[in-house]
Amino acid sequence: MKFSFKNDYSEGCHPDILQALLQYNADQQAGYGEDEYSLKAKELIKEKIKKTDSEIYFVSGGTQANLIVISSVLKPYQCVISASPGHILNNETGAIEATGHKILSIETEDGKLRPSDIIPVLENHKNVPHQVMPKLVYISNSTELGTIYQSKELEELSVFCRQYNLYLFMDGARLGHGLMSEISDLTLDKVAGLTDIFYLGGTKNGALLGEAIIVNNAALQEDFAFNIKQKGALLAKGRLLGIQFLELMKGNLYFDLAKHANQQAMKIKNALQAKGVKFLSDTYTNQIFPILNNDLIQILSVNFEFYIWKKIDDNYSAIRLITSWNTGDAPVNQFIDVIEDNL
Amino acid sequence: MKFSFKNDYSEGCHPDILQALLQYNADQQAGYGEDEYSLKAKELIKEKIKKTDSEIYFVSGGTQANLIVISSVLKPYQCVISASPGHILNNETGAIEATGHKILSIETEDGKLRPSDIIPVLENHKNVPHQVMPKLVYISNSTELGTIYQSKELEELSVFCRQYNLYLFMDGARLGHGLMSEISDLTLDKVAGLTDIFYLGGTKNGALLGEAIIVNNAALQEDFAFNIKQKGALLAKGRLLGIQFLELMKGNLYFDLAKHANQQAMKIKNALQAKGVKFLSDTYTNQIFPILNNDLIQILSVNFEFYIWKKIDDNYSAIRLITSWNTGDAPVNQFIDVIEDNL
Amino acid sequence: MKFSFKNDYSEGCHPDILQALLQYNADQQAGYGEDEYSLKAKELIKEKIKKTDSEIYFVSGGTQANLIVISSVLKPYQCVISASPGHILNNETGAIEATGHKILSIETEDGKLRPSDIIPVLENHKNVPHQVMPKLVYISNSTELGTIYQSKELEELSVFCRQYNLYLFMDGARLGHGLMSEISDLTLDKVAGLTDIFYLGGTKNGALLGEAIIVNNAALQEDFAFNIKQKGALLAKGRLLGIQFLELMKGNLYFDLAKHANQQAMKIKNALQAKGVKFLSDTYTNQIFPILNNDLIQILSVNFEFYIWKKIDDNYSAIRLITSWNTGDAPVNQFIDVIEDNL
Amino acid sequence: MKFSFKNDYSEGCHPDILQALLQYNADQQAGYGEDEYSLKAKELIKEKIKKTDSEIYFVSGGTQANLIVISSVLKPYQCVISASPGHILNNETGAIEATGHKILSIETEDGKLRPSDIIPVLENHKNVPHQVMPKLVYISNSTELGTIYQSKELEELSVFCRQYNLYLFMDGARLGHGLMSEISDLTLDKVAGLTDIFYLGGTKNGALLGEAIIVNNAALQEDFAFNIKQKGALLAKGRLLGIQFLELMKGNLYFDLAKHANQQAMKIKNALQAKGVKFLSDTYTNQIFPILNNDLIQILSVNFEFYIWKKIDDNYSAIRLITSWNTGDAPVNQFIDVIEDNL
Repeated sequence: MKFSFKNDYSEGCHPDILQALLQYNADQQAGYGEDEYSLKAKELIKEKIKKTDSEIYFVSGGTQANLIVISSVLKPYQCVISASPGHILNNETGAIEATGHKILSIETEDGKLRPSDIIPVLENHKNVPHQVMPKLVYISNSTELGTIYQSKELEELSVFCRQYNLYLFMDGARLGHGLMSEISDLTLDKVAGLTDIFYLGGTKNGALLGEAIIVNNAALQEDFAFNIKQKGALLAKGRLLGIQFLELMKGNLYFDLAKHANQQAMKIKNALQAKGVKFLSDTYTNQIFPILNNDLIQILSVNFEFYIWKKIDDNYSAIRLITSWNTGDAPVNQFIDVIEDNL
Repeated sequence: MKFSFKNDYSEGCHPDILQALLQYNADQQAGYGEDEYSLKAKELIKEKIKKTDSEIYFVSGGTQANLIVISSVLKPYQCVISASPGHILNNETGAIEATGHKILSIETEDGKLRPSDIIPVLENHKNVPHQVMPKLVYISNSTELGTIYQSKELEELSVFCRQYNLYLFMDGARLGHGLMSEISDLTLDKVAGLTDIFYLGGTKNGALLGEAIIVNNAALQEDFAFNIKQKGALLAKGRLLGIQFLELMKGNLYFDLAKHANQQAMKIKNALQAKGVKFLSDTYTNQIFPILNNDLIQILSVNFEFYIWKKIDDNYSAIRLITSWNTGDAPVNQFIDVIEDNL
Repeated sequence: MKFSFKNDYSEGCHPDILQALLQYNADQQAGYGEDEYSLKAKELIKEKIKKTDSEIYFVSGGTQANLIVISSVLKPYQCVISASPGHILNNETGAIEATGHKILSIETEDGKLRPSDIIPVLENHKNVPHQVMPKLVYISNSTELGTIYQSKELEELSVFCRQYNLYLFMDGARLGHGLMSEISDLTLDKVAGLTDIFYLGGTKNGALLGEAIIVNNAALQEDFAFNIKQKGALLAKGRLLGIQFLELMKGNLYFDLAKHANQQAMKIKNALQAKGVKFLSDTYTNQIFPILNNDLIQILSVNFEFYIWKKIDDNYSAIRLITSWNTGDAPVNQFIDVIEDNL
Repeated sequence: MKFSFKNDYSEGCHPDILQALLQYNADQQAGYGEDEYSLKAKELIKEKIKKTDSEIYFVSGGTQANLIVISSVLKPYQCVISASPGHILNNETGAIEATGHKILSIETEDGKLRPSDIIPVLENHKNVPHQVMPKLVYISNSTELGTIYQSKELEELSVFCRQYNLYLFMDGARLGHGLMSEISDLTLDKVAGLTDIFYLGGTKNGALLGEAIIVNNAALQEDFAFNIKQKGALLAKGRLLGIQFLELMKGNLYFDLAKHANQQAMKIKNALQAKGVKFLSDTYTNQIFPILNNDLIQILSVNFEFYIWKKIDDNYSAIRLITSWNTGDAPVNQFIDVIEDNL
């Protein structure tokens, strides 16, 4: 059996979650997210984001969260701005467009957006009413390329969005990993203070499923629950989501899990760098993109699964390695050993 | 703590499911439904429906299943026909219309559709191209009123639909309960043979979440997975759905759970009938709608939760009682005791 | 060649419009409704509605007007309330649902809505967030059955809508006919004062095409033009719509045309009533629904075209006769002659 | 009064059309495109395209035609491929996305698509079912940059599309101009033979409004009319569209008008080239994009209206000049005079 570095959703969930599911299994609870676990989990999240007036909704996954947020926030003629590697642009089968909204793509090297990237797009969309109206800026942290936003970057983007009357929405499918990056100076409460709406990903950080959508902007809170139901995202047994976030939010578990994932990736990164390996992007989260000789990739494939991300030239390709909350030391060390034996 | 007869999704899941989640938790598996549990569960379902050429997809809940099926099957100008109590008409926040499709409602006493109900609707929709084209007949079994389809009824409807070039889609959120009704002569394989598409509900019959959409009509199978992804319904950890259906499909568990739920409801029904109580509809599944004096309803409310379904007159109302796979004898007997003490 | 009483869009347009098209044909004008004719026509409409702060947009037809207004005004989870004969419910191929919105149908005898009709629907839609939210009341004047709203009726409905936070939208495809009915005490400026949004139909009252959408509620005016463009309704040569409404709004032409149409229908109605004929509904506009013996219908069919609207019994059916701005005295008198000769 | 070279929809329509509207004005005709003029116009078009089995529908404008064609042809998860200057991408307020479909943009210098442009996009969309499925190739002829497709180019694209199971759709808002370009070897019947669906633009070539959608692929013909009605595009007085196309299709009028427009543009182009002026793109239709000194642009602006299309550097900008069927010699000569006096 090969060990998989293909993604961070290969395994089940953190054991505390399963224990809680066992413990509470026989309780009768109200349905559709009105259970006591969901209510408690929301309180814990509000404490951690330090905003008691935010509203929180649990949904099953990232694509679902993205399509609900965007279709709820925008009017029919308004559109989204995203960096070109954005998950909503490439990997959601047109889910956003299926709700009626265009996504304008901006090419950026590192998958991040800055005000200077966005201004030309706004300039090119002034032919009223013949063009869609840009209204929501979609960013991911960590990004689809494993990069992160620092405090100053998010602040600048937030100020810019308010100035231009744009909503700022952060896809946080890997927000834990972004915040726990060894180089990050951003914190969860800052994210809540600087965005109109964002979500905290559970699926890729220890849960069986679940993302917590956090609506900070009061104007976007009204009737948000209707959209969740209409899109088929309101689980009858909402307790399943509530219990998971309740466990993840206890103490520092959510952040510890993300930190562990990052550390395992950094171990591999450091070993590769020590051997002079270059990377496609300079990441400090649980995704790394080393550029390796095709022969070495072949050797690694014997015992490990991973994606070949991009052909560099006839001899070299970048691969993508992802670690998770559950990636043990053994596979990491074994991977490093193969590298060191062959470089 | 009151005991709740409000619905069949108040508790967690069947213990076998939790044990399986524990057992398989650390395994690495492919994502998005390609895990081995999902594949095995699909094989078990195909055995039970006795159709190896059907395609099966797991999604999270009933509204999600309904909107995916309908939006996948219909062209933009085609519409759905439903009995007036249909879940898609009343309790899904316009989820079907949000995908662009009209639902034509047909008033029926028992929540069931017969060819004679449908013909007038077809007759009234012949002003091409000024009217929507009826194309899919949506039925529920058991229905939202707790009634069921017998073999002969489903056969007639199926023949009719083929004759009129209509698709037949069965909402099976409570299909276990429908099939295990003491008066039902319908079987799962007959359902598969007589419908173009249907689903097998897990959420209301022992799972934490999950419905198995079963596509029997080959013409509807093509590219179905795209629709699931686009609507945000493709879970990264599809194993969560696979493991649950794998357990439910082992032996006769799925049917035993539904049978138990029905039996608990029938116990209460029989006790009430013995006291001369009338019912809003004559049901043999896990939903009953007794008509009670408001004073008695008041007394029952002290220890039990349930919905007051319909006001009958100034003194009487119908209440809805729902039992589940997990409804024990104790609350049932206690409820009967209160009835017998007060009637 | 039979004379047609089938509808009020069988002929071309009023001669003044053609003359204006000829006169202005060579002028160069700005596109997309920014031409001087459109601007002048809007000014004339504002004078007639006595509201200078309304915004006016010209579109091509009624279905287009309905779908643009409704999809612009509603949030994704909000729905429309309509009387059961509503054009949007029956004769627009699901155009409203195609924009994502459900229509709730209310059965009424005369095609009109009163607060007492609407209240039960609001009562039945309080299960938040599991049901669509009723938000817009759609009425037609004259209605699809030829009936009309009087001042007091519209006032009561308007007060009710404001009280319940509902928008009131009037489909005015035949608004001229409604207002010029011999029994109507409603005026155009009252309509503008009592509705949030309505339109003034040109297609059925002398134009080649065109409806003037009038947005009275300031909250609904913002960015309305985007929706028109997005739905493909913004004509490059907007002058075509502007010139037509400019002519129709000169003096009293628009109302004179509607009055003429009504009078021709009333002549037939009076002749029929004098012979003891009954009607399906008691109308005073350009639509009448006499109930005739099938033999007489056969005789009338020799020289006239009309719709057989509804079978009454084995011997009698209701037919629909529609007159227009261009229905001359000759066919009306000829029709009456046939009646009088055969009754 | 300045003369406008801003677009080809500044004036009314060709005089023959107005005469026909006058002549037929009083006739009673069936509504919704069943009038005899529409039927005759369709016959004439079928003769000109030399395909009797195509189906033809008249609609009001280009955005409407584009959104109806695309939403009719595609399944929910399928998307469009367009060159980056595509009208559907930039100037239709997200009309296509509003019907649920993504547009993939391909950067090309001249606004045209070749198989080699499309192949990489297909290669990058193979992650089933996580990405939209490319299914329809949208091209314009002439393009938004004034360039054209030659026979060989369209043949190669057509073969490619059939090979890859893609539909080929040509936006023909300016198809007359494309075909009548002095360098074009493409003909209308070839266009009909090589595309699955296309339209013939009236609005920009002598009509008041109107585009003729021509459905060549039999598989796409079924029920097409429903989509037209549902999108609000079925005019009650369809005769307005029928009469116009009937006139345009008589003899060679449609092509003569386009040829005239092209010739007037070429006169200006030649005069500019004689003075050494460079152009943004090398066009032979009614759109030209000369690069001029800002001072000269200022001088030209005194008597002419046109768009400044693109800033080239601090001293030079490209302007867009468009001529039409109605652009006389006087303004063309006057424009050339100003150029010659100032260069």
